[in-house]
Amino acid sequence: MKIDVLTLFPEMFSGVMNSSILKRAHEAGHFDYNLVDFREYTESKHGKVDDYPYGGGAGMVLSPQPIFDAVESLTEQSKTKPRILLMCPQGETYTQKKAEELAEEKHLIVICGHYEGYDERIREHLVTDEISIGDYVLTGGELGAMVVTDSVVRLLPGVLGNNDSAKKDSFSTDLLEHPHYTRPSEFRGHQVPEVLLSGHHQNIEDWREYESLKRTYERRPDLIDQANLTDKQQKLLERIIEEK
Amino acid sequence: MKIDVLTLFPEMFSGVMNSSILKRAHEAGHFDYNLVDFREYTESKHGKVDDYPYGGGAGMVLSPQPIFDAVESLTEQSKTKPRILLMCPQGETYTQKKAEELAEEKHLIVICGHYEGYDERIREHLVTDEISIGDYVLTGGELGAMVVTDSVVRLLPGVLGNNDSAKKDSFSTDLLEHPHYTRPSEFRGHQVPEVLLSGHHQNIEDWREYESLKRTYERRPDLIDQANLTDKQQKLLERIIEEK
Repeated sequence: MKIDVLTLFPEMFSGVMNSSILKRAHEAGHFDYNLVDFREYTESKHGKVDDYPYGGGAGMVLSPQPIFDAVESLTEQSKTKPRILLMCPQGETYTQKKAEELAEEKHLIVICGHYEGYDERIREHLVTDEISIGDYVLTGGELGAMVVTDSVVRLLPGVLGNNDSAKKDSFSTDLLEHPHYTRPSEFRGHQVPEVLLSGHHQNIEDWREYESLKRTYERRPDLIDQANLTDKQQKLLERIIEEK
Repeated sequence: MKIDVLTLFPEMFSGVMNSSILKRAHEAGHFDYNLVDFREYTESKHGKVDDYPYGGGAGMVLSPQPIFDAVESLTEQSKTKPRILLMCPQGETYTQKKAEELAEEKHLIVICGHYEGYDERIREHLVTDEISIGDYVLTGGELGAMVVTDSVVRLLPGVLGNNDSAKKDSFSTDLLEHPHYTRPSEFRGHQVPEVLLSGHHQNIEDWREYESLKRTYERRPDLIDQANLTDKQQKLLERIIEEK
């Protein structure tokens, strides 16, 4: 997979791209990326990429020309049709399902804005997807682009050592994960639940399933509504609701 | 404000902390931060911070000892009671409202995990808040910590030049922002809406309010349900629903 990121702050990405799984995945050739400062594409003599909003108001708006030209220069070289993502608060809320969909693509272009926003014509006539990583205000789209990159790259075949590891995570199974414990069995007076020390595999599985459902029900009932529960889980859930 | 970040990958933060508004806000003394590698606090001779999960299963679990000790060493020096945030998929979904709440604090400690998860005793007996930035799987909590830092710091007094700028953003007003346009008035055959060129301030305000409501209704009806609409907005919304 190839990921092109259009940003006015390419230096923001160095720490994240050069650490942990993204670094290893890049070195192993699972994906390639390219940080494009779209200021280089402006036709403005003064290097400007933004301008005052029509109709007045505070803040500056990103001009269409530099971003259109940057994207077109990247797609010229591309044989496959890329997905062109605009990171913005008005976009669809990013989810694991969207990450899985994007992980099937060969080429992503991710546009990061700053300032008040984008000229609407970028939205209407250039991009394929508008994405928001959550309902909060960030300085720019860069953190969103990193979130998309990290979440997508870890789904690419071969990136995670253990293929099961990605599948059991929260959101991949519709439910929040059960609690984890490790040594010591007592830490500052707080014990590990006995069942986990019992060595009884079926009981451990049952406990984990129960705790996962209970946690999801208590914290994120919206996920329960969307989940495909098995008959066993459905019965467990009824028990959890009764116990409340 | 002081922000301490506990992480095994402090180098991930360099690009983000040294760019744009976070850099300026730090240099101007609006906030201070401290990247703490909690591996330095482990009592393990081999520098280990994780261990196998009780009850079996794939992946490693972060041990309680290094994280408890790191947090306690940071709070010893602190006069005020800090908020201790755990970045994790099982946490409450982060929102602008939470950012506003955290921006009132003097001291935040943000714990970033990696691997399969945290020992449950960290969750139960150490942290004050569990936070998830969205329903997707990331390699670690570092991107979440950057999201929290960016969204909170931009709310601190004096950080944004124009005090209005933070307030009019999407999510601060319950609604998505209206479209923006800048020069040229025609770009590749696509025109700026005439009203924005009219110079008629009331018409421009009305158009923006209408477009903001319409966009929110079409893309994020869940935000409309939670919004405190004025009578005027309520009537506009009825018109939008009729027009559909």
